[in-house]
Amino acid sequence: MSNYTAPLTDLRFALHDVLKAESLFAAMGLEDANAELIDAVLEEAGRFSGSVLAPLNATGDEHGCKLDKATGEVTTAPGFKEAYAQFVEGGWTGLTAAPEFGGQGMPETLGMALSEMVSAANLSWSLFPMLSHGAVEALKHYGEDWQKDAFLKPLVAGNWTGTMCLTEPHAGTDLGLLKTRAEPNDDGSYSITGTKIFITAGEHDLSENIVHLVLAKLPDAPPGPKGISLFVTPKYKVDRSGNLGERNALRCGALEHKMGIHGSSTCVMNFDGAQGYLVGQPHKGLQAMFVMMNSARLGVGVQGLSQSERAWQGALAYARERLQSRAPKGALLADKPADPIIAQPDVRRMLLTIKALTEGGRLLATHAYTQLDAAQHAGDAKVRADADTLVSFLTPIVKACLTEWSIEATYNAQQCFGGHGYIAEHGMEQLARDARITTLYEGTTGIQALDLIGRKTAVSQGAGLKLFLAEVEQFIAANAGNPAVAEFLPVLGAKAQEWGKLTIDVLQRAAVNPEELGAASWDYLFYSGYVALAYWWARSVAAAQASAHPEGFKQAKLETARFYYARILPRTLAHAASMQSGAEPLMAMDATRFGA
Amino acid sequence: MSNYTAPLTDLRFALHDVLKAESLFAAMGLEDANAELIDAVLEEAGRFSGSVLAPLNATGDEHGCKLDKATGEVTTAPGFKEAYAQFVEGGWTGLTAAPEFGGQGMPETLGMALSEMVSAANLSWSLFPMLSHGAVEALKHYGEDWQKDAFLKPLVAGNWTGTMCLTEPHAGTDLGLLKTRAEPNDDGSYSITGTKIFITAGEHDLSENIVHLVLAKLPDAPPGPKGISLFVTPKYKVDRSGNLGERNALRCGALEHKMGIHGSSTCVMNFDGAQGYLVGQPHKGLQAMFVMMNSARLGVGVQGLSQSERAWQGALAYARERLQSRAPKGALLADKPADPIIAQPDVRRMLLTIKALTEGGRLLATHAYTQLDAAQHAGDAKVRADADTLVSFLTPIVKACLTEWSIEATYNAQQCFGGHGYIAEHGMEQLARDARITTLYEGTTGIQALDLIGRKTAVSQGAGLKLFLAEVEQFIAANAGNPAVAEFLPVLGAKAQEWGKLTIDVLQRAAVNPEELGAASWDYLFYSGYVALAYWWARSVAAAQASAHPEGFKQAKLETARFYYARILPRTLAHAASMQSGAEPLMAMDATRFGA
Repeated sequence: MSNYTAPLTDLRFALHDVLKAESLFAAMGLEDANAELIDAVLEEAGRFSGSVLAPLNATGDEHGCKLDKATGEVTTAPGFKEAYAQFVEGGWTGLTAAPEFGGQGMPETLGMALSEMVSAANLSWSLFPMLSHGAVEALKHYGEDWQKDAFLKPLVAGNWTGTMCLTEPHAGTDLGLLKTRAEPNDDGSYSITGTKIFITAGEHDLSENIVHLVLAKLPDAPPGPKGISLFVTPKYKVDRSGNLGERNALRCGALEHKMGIHGSSTCVMNFDGAQGYLVGQPHKGLQAMFVMMNSARLGVGVQGLSQSERAWQGALAYARERLQSRAPKGALLADKPADPIIAQPDVRRMLLTIKALTEGGRLLATHAYTQLDAAQHAGDAKVRADADTLVSFLTPIVKACLTEWSIEATYNAQQCFGGHGYIAEHGMEQLARDARITTLYEGTTGIQALDLIGRKTAVSQGAGLKLFLAEVEQFIAANAGNPAVAEFLPVLGAKAQEWGKLTIDVLQRAAVNPEELGAASWDYLFYSGYVALAYWWARSVAAAQASAHPEGFKQAKLETARFYYARILPRTLAHAASMQSGAEPLMAMDATRFGA
Repeated sequence: MSNYTAPLTDLRFALHDVLKAESLFAAMGLEDANAELIDAVLEEAGRFSGSVLAPLNATGDEHGCKLDKATGEVTTAPGFKEAYAQFVEGGWTGLTAAPEFGGQGMPETLGMALSEMVSAANLSWSLFPMLSHGAVEALKHYGEDWQKDAFLKPLVAGNWTGTMCLTEPHAGTDLGLLKTRAEPNDDGSYSITGTKIFITAGEHDLSENIVHLVLAKLPDAPPGPKGISLFVTPKYKVDRSGNLGERNALRCGALEHKMGIHGSSTCVMNFDGAQGYLVGQPHKGLQAMFVMMNSARLGVGVQGLSQSERAWQGALAYARERLQSRAPKGALLADKPADPIIAQPDVRRMLLTIKALTEGGRLLATHAYTQLDAAQHAGDAKVRADADTLVSFLTPIVKACLTEWSIEATYNAQQCFGGHGYIAEHGMEQLARDARITTLYEGTTGIQALDLIGRKTAVSQGAGLKLFLAEVEQFIAANAGNPAVAEFLPVLGAKAQEWGKLTIDVLQRAAVNPEELGAASWDYLFYSGYVALAYWWARSVAAAQASAHPEGFKQAKLETARFYYARILPRTLAHAASMQSGAEPLMAMDATRFGA
């Protein structure tokens, strides 16, 4: 079984030394989130995650969730319920929620750090409270006043949890195809009927009530995505005064049998004329859903990061203690039968790959969250608008790259363990299975890639990319005379320029042939992610040098950056060449010729 | 649940059209393996795999193996035993074995095709007969006459199965560290005592006896790998006349709880003074084990291929039937609510990646097996020696690349399925979990990479590479005027030349610093694999054009080759740049600086 220790030093480095969180938050009017409070939250969240949640990670994998078919009730793994009660008791569910609904009003950036630690400790468990965040966001933005009063306080307090009910068997990426119906009742409520699948935390025993936000079609709905409305549909009915009523006509019909996250209940939810209330305008449900989804997508990116961090901790510990073969230059531990495998260059390649992608990815995500906060809280309207543009652009990169890197990280960790990585005992194979979901839900990697190159680049004329590149150029200019980063800046500058050129190139081709966008999307996504990480590694070195951290810490950041530029960044060569080859090699083959 | 249909057309294409198997075998004196017989074997093996083994694949995953702790006996999943009886009945266990021991003397190349189909249908099940092959090889080469008589016939007939007992808890890659002891008895046998782990098919209920080939140390053994001897140690004792005796003092102590291949019994085997017989010379056991291991490594490469093929079949079927969103250029099926996702460029990228790596990988492996046959059967000593050099060189490439590509193939298949790829129902997640073992056992990918660049390149002065490049150059020269492949040859020629240069470059650096080998190994492995595949794709196009296959088949090979050169081969750019950055970025960091 693997342990988990919250990476407090690197979290503090990201927040304080690189992103200057305290002054950033103060400039947004969030003075309460000062350095002292940030550190206190990190420390306490780290303690809770490591001591309460981490030991339940293997338990959840082993026990899974149990559905009582007779009642439709779901029992979670031993210890999950008690841990959730402690989480609620500690006030963690309301950390970033608005004070008017009982929250603590902390920045989402700090909420991200909490999420990383909770998810690293126990990804399955983390999904129960996580989904409430999206439900709160949707109701806060689109709910009627009585809906806010009735639902938000218990959701923020954690006594209730939330879900997002989107997917149906025949409608995943293409939500316009969904069939769930909403019939108006005389009392202003609606009767919701239909089947939703893949509903995370759709049923469980952790909370008093479960608030489902359900996409459905009204009788007069126009066809396709413009005919979708959003309904709040609780497990136990809630009246307009917020009183809990009888059981609603919805239940869990089955639990999915999954590759991983066994401790999380992934439900088929059947709505049989369940009472729901319209949230927002009729037929505008998709818009509200995107509010939930964008925040959820950033959150899933952080889940990926969390699995990478835990893989890192497991692999590093093993590589240091596993004695096997001798170092290439001769024995290091002459009194032992063999040397630790960390002496092997190829083991170091695997370890440093995890380290570079994880620590760099942490900055990529944390930066996106600071923009999320700025988009909401900054005093200046232009700053808010730019931050919103930037976080929208970064969201698919964070979601897709951090989750794909978690596949690579957990994979490398398994390889470091050799055959021991394949058996349950050491916990590495669970990480690999659990991490896998993050590349699939809230939109697959391919969907994120399309979102990045389509909506977030082509549609907006590259507005988000321009903002990001301006930041990169500003950093390069500001560090022109800084010897600490002199070796990185020419490469970074060239890659940033190439990023812009490749973007123009693909958008020009797409203007002639719409297939060019999808054809380039996947390579464009990773190209973007790797160049963005090159920026964060250069900034890490600059920030470390300017910090009060010990020399060993500074040296490690420098060496990891060098590794990144030498060994990972060259992947951009392949992605650039591949995307420049255009759509023809993908589209030429007739669908009938693919095979028998 | 996914189905499996043996890819007979592509298997025939590889054997007949590309590799000209019939004349190749005839030149080795294996005239019995004519085209008609090859086709009959392919067809019958395909039928058996698809109809008997494939339906048991999910069963094995669900039921796993059960150990009776009281008796140490293992029960396999429902249907496994009956399927094995049919396999034995059909004579499949002896397909490639020598006729003097009851085998059919067919080429290993044909055995590979059988293995691919059996493994694709049911990887877990395939491991029970597979391990016998290595035991037969070791006994055939190193066994005393009475050992051959006693053990080989029942192993070849399939009434007994074999195992390889190498790994111990503290000794995996570094077998020199093993602790299992062999004490001489008065009757010429030895008493074996120790614990072996990760023993595939170590205990099961399919066969009458299980023949363990065990690495152990004699009392006078020199330390390290030069002190290892090999012993044949059956579950039921066997006397020098081949009579089955009482139960030997060895038993299964536990079954590993694994990520996948649940239907295969992976055993902890305890030897408590078990009676064994020395195979070959004292202290020369590692040499005998390498005979088993090299053949096993090629076999594991084929297992990787098999999982890629099954992933391909699942993903293609789903991409053709799943209706979601519209094609980029507008509706294809205007009367349906959406178009099949195979219309999406990025879905095609995933499918074509699987197709290119699988069909190309099939040729890479089949070619290696033809060299294995030539090394054994060719009339000319120089041809035999060259073939042996070439297959030794190709073995780590086949093992590592085909298994790593199976990770990519099963991954892409899951992504094509979206969230449905994560649940058990469609079978894709099982493939991903099962394929994962192939990159770990018989030496991890990192170990293969070291074998390729070290023993198979540096030690032999690039002898294997020179043979392979000579073949590539010969192909280029022979096709200089062939318009079918004109677009590929310049790129292939340049890459082949670069492969040679990169090799010289890294060997020169390694002469100064031994860390350079390990530092370059992983990138060198993949660089080699991708250039080798470029050769096989060019040859595929040439062979398809010259064949009697329908136009659609020829066109599909051409389009897949174009995809490969445009979208996959550019990965060599990243691998070349990365390996040229040298050891410094990997070795600079002191082990203490990696993290807390």
